[in-house]
Amino acid sequence: MSNTPAYDALIARSRSQYHLHHLAMIAGVDRETLMPPGGAEARALALAELQQVMHARSTDPAIADLLKAAAQEELDDEARADMREMTRGYTLATALPAELVEAKGLAASRCEYEWRAQRQANDWAAYLPNFREVLRLSREEATRLSDALGLSPYDALLETFEPGMRGAEVSRVFGAMRGWLPGLIAQIRDKQAKESVIEPVGPFAFEAQRALVREMAEALGFDFTRGRLDESTHPFSGGVPEDVRMTTRFREDDFSVALFSTIHETGHSRYEQGSPRGWLGRPIGTWRSMGIHESQSLAFEMQLARSQGFLERLAPRLVHHFGAQRAFEPENWVRAATRVVAGKIRVDADEATYPCHVMLRFDIERALIAGEMQAEDLPAAWDEGMRDLLGIDTRGDYRDGCMQDPHWAGGAFGYFPCYTLGALYAAQWFATIRRATPDLDARIAAGDYAPVFDWLGANIWSQASRWTTPELVQRASGEALNPEHFRRHLQARYLTSS
Amino acid sequence: MSNTPAYDALIARSRSQYHLHHLAMIAGVDRETLMPPGGAEARALALAELQQVMHARSTDPAIADLLKAAAQEELDDEARADMREMTRGYTLATALPAELVEAKGLAASRCEYEWRAQRQANDWAAYLPNFREVLRLSREEATRLSDALGLSPYDALLETFEPGMRGAEVSRVFGAMRGWLPGLIAQIRDKQAKESVIEPVGPFAFEAQRALVREMAEALGFDFTRGRLDESTHPFSGGVPEDVRMTTRFREDDFSVALFSTIHETGHSRYEQGSPRGWLGRPIGTWRSMGIHESQSLAFEMQLARSQGFLERLAPRLVHHFGAQRAFEPENWVRAATRVVAGKIRVDADEATYPCHVMLRFDIERALIAGEMQAEDLPAAWDEGMRDLLGIDTRGDYRDGCMQDPHWAGGAFGYFPCYTLGALYAAQWFATIRRATPDLDARIAAGDYAPVFDWLGANIWSQASRWTTPELVQRASGEALNPEHFRRHLQARYLTSS
Repeated sequence: MSNTPAYDALIARSRSQYHLHHLAMIAGVDRETLMPPGGAEARALALAELQQVMHARSTDPAIADLLKAAAQEELDDEARADMREMTRGYTLATALPAELVEAKGLAASRCEYEWRAQRQANDWAAYLPNFREVLRLSREEATRLSDALGLSPYDALLETFEPGMRGAEVSRVFGAMRGWLPGLIAQIRDKQAKESVIEPVGPFAFEAQRALVREMAEALGFDFTRGRLDESTHPFSGGVPEDVRMTTRFREDDFSVALFSTIHETGHSRYEQGSPRGWLGRPIGTWRSMGIHESQSLAFEMQLARSQGFLERLAPRLVHHFGAQRAFEPENWVRAATRVVAGKIRVDADEATYPCHVMLRFDIERALIAGEMQAEDLPAAWDEGMRDLLGIDTRGDYRDGCMQDPHWAGGAFGYFPCYTLGALYAAQWFATIRRATPDLDARIAAGDYAPVFDWLGANIWSQASRWTTPELVQRASGEALNPEHFRRHLQARYLTSS
Repeated sequence: MSNTPAYDALIARSRSQYHLHHLAMIAGVDRETLMPPGGAEARALALAELQQVMHARSTDPAIADLLKAAAQEELDDEARADMREMTRGYTLATALPAELVEAKGLAASRCEYEWRAQRQANDWAAYLPNFREVLRLSREEATRLSDALGLSPYDALLETFEPGMRGAEVSRVFGAMRGWLPGLIAQIRDKQAKESVIEPVGPFAFEAQRALVREMAEALGFDFTRGRLDESTHPFSGGVPEDVRMTTRFREDDFSVALFSTIHETGHSRYEQGSPRGWLGRPIGTWRSMGIHESQSLAFEMQLARSQGFLERLAPRLVHHFGAQRAFEPENWVRAATRVVAGKIRVDADEATYPCHVMLRFDIERALIAGEMQAEDLPAAWDEGMRDLLGIDTRGDYRDGCMQDPHWAGGAFGYFPCYTLGALYAAQWFATIRRATPDLDARIAAGDYAPVFDWLGANIWSQASRWTTPELVQRASGEALNPEHFRRHLQARYLTSS
């Protein structure tokens, strides 16, 4: 008989939840990729029913007793890490009263649903009352989580996406970047203004694009025996580690959407596929945090796939799939794939300007949750931030301004910083890989990505949730999060003459 | 406040189960159509976990109390029909001890899994011990169900697939058919032996086949806004009424596999899509029985789509999709699509010889469950039955003899009769439609299938589980199940000179 019965009982519960989670993920993937419109309502009810089953299980008061009992058992280090995650999970699951969860869910669904048309119509006035209600309930959620976790309200929200990260730490990092990023962007744009670039000209046949992205996913190590690549309106990586479902989307006039979104999702997917098999179903077996997940997709998409060596190898493959055109001459293609352009839209941004979009949102959402800013103050703060950070005028353009993202409409405050944390982590990983493999660029240029995959596998994928995020960063790279690696990366890629 | 609180509580539970069932169906469809091999184990565990949740809910002792309380409430006729179904469901769900369900599940999984290779190898000796264990546990299951339902053991199994049907009734019907079917088959074969038929010659491009079957599904009224047509190794119709997923499979050398399987599954699918929306989630809202379900697929595939008028209209569409060939001349194509050939394989059988395959299996499985026949007696009984019914020698050929089907290996005894009950019901529906629409054949020949769809919609689809099967048959056709309609159908189609 086991001498850790309480811990074992908790792990059995964790595995049961993992199995139900599997069904939620697959039904969610089906919804985005295959489901006909008539199935939407029944699917929503079905998933809500499953959520209810899972929520009841995750808030079962017996878990509190088991956690107490297991804390007295003789546990090894990995089991103690399981306990850390289970304690956090139980605290989060039980922190919110059911009525608040339901009220916020309804308000967010409504706001997000109506936002689609309101955004199209540039109708801030219609959006405001819905948004105000979502903000009100999100503040209440933050307060409740704050009480349960002993963190500030904003930090409590951040904790749900990026455990261990605090607003003050994000401030420190983003504050440093604010000092050098706008100037660096200006330097890059000055340099690029002197270079001529030929844009690829379509149409690019869907079949050729499909073959290209499949080839890319295979070259980047996606395991098709344990996953699929399908299509959806918005690319994503979903499913479960045993069966990872990633998607892309195809535009006939622009193959780079499918190409780079596939590479991005392949990064997410390899993180999932690289989870230790023996840990699956255990709390330590799951991906670490949103920022770490994004660091994998950006390691693939930005660090690896937009490097000069990778892009130069890609050029002849473009010729192979789409036929020759001048834009695919290697030197031009490298320039075309690394243009830096300040624009209004976050999701269209290049890696240099992207953090500006995030820093703006971080400042605003922190003030909104703290009650220092009200819903109606959002457009003015947005316009001011976009002018300061990127020199762009967004006045009166809510559609491509403060109404462009679904996150806040859906009540997800504390999520945005993870995108840029991911970019910073990715740069830090590559700096570490480069120290261990000084000829990394030559290896990549020769099509040998093993140094990247081996390092990520050993230091990130195989570690899953074994460590807290700060511990993971320290162990993997030998230091805490350091935005300096990102600065050096931008300088090396965009300001060193090649 | 409702004055039927117990009934309402039962309906709420029914709806919850319906929502979870949705996820099981979609995950099952995904498994057959998309899932990569590496996902199989995790999917099996996930579905088993959901089954456990659903089983715990369906056997909750509180249901017994609610059923008792609701029986005292003032319920309308539809609610009383709900009560009939819930009572039956609870009795079936609670009749079997969990250990028996688990033991049978394991034995059946093992037997069915190993059967795949054993069948290929024609290895009866290796199959026998697994099959003996499945039979032993199926007998025990039958005995337990028999106690709970107050039926004979075989009838208790039949009740799980075709509620209200009894072995004695099947015997009566099959006994009558045994008197005339073999002679009728001989007559048909004599007649057809004098006719020359040209078989269509492939290859038939997959894209052309896809276009053909999509066109067929649309012409037959499949609603693509509430369903999909995909591909799988074995065609099926799954999903839920709000989102019906049917599949087909393509063989390059024979388009008729995809064509007729799509038409067959469209019949199943329209039954589902025709469920009354207001009843979904209620016990009366579900499909009635396996036999009634099969009557819909066979009404489409056999009664409608192999009629002379339908086939003649189809001929120019084949030319359109595949190009002209002599086999597609209407008179020839009608003959090619209505050949009667006595063969060893049930799933390849035409509608005239198919019932012989089922009658054989019915006699054997009834004797097996009654303990009048043992597992080792199966091959001899099979050989004898095939010789008597179809004049075919199967001695030594287990692979295409008694080992050809997965049903018994999987522990499904009492299922086979439903196939032929479906064919008999379908003939009875068409006889009824023809009485109401004397020019039915001319309407079909003109491409007007409304008389068929309208009648099925009003009499079968919209009735769901409102009535017991015998009640449904009586109400729809004005008489009890009568195999005479099937005899007349075969005579009219195959022995009347056209």
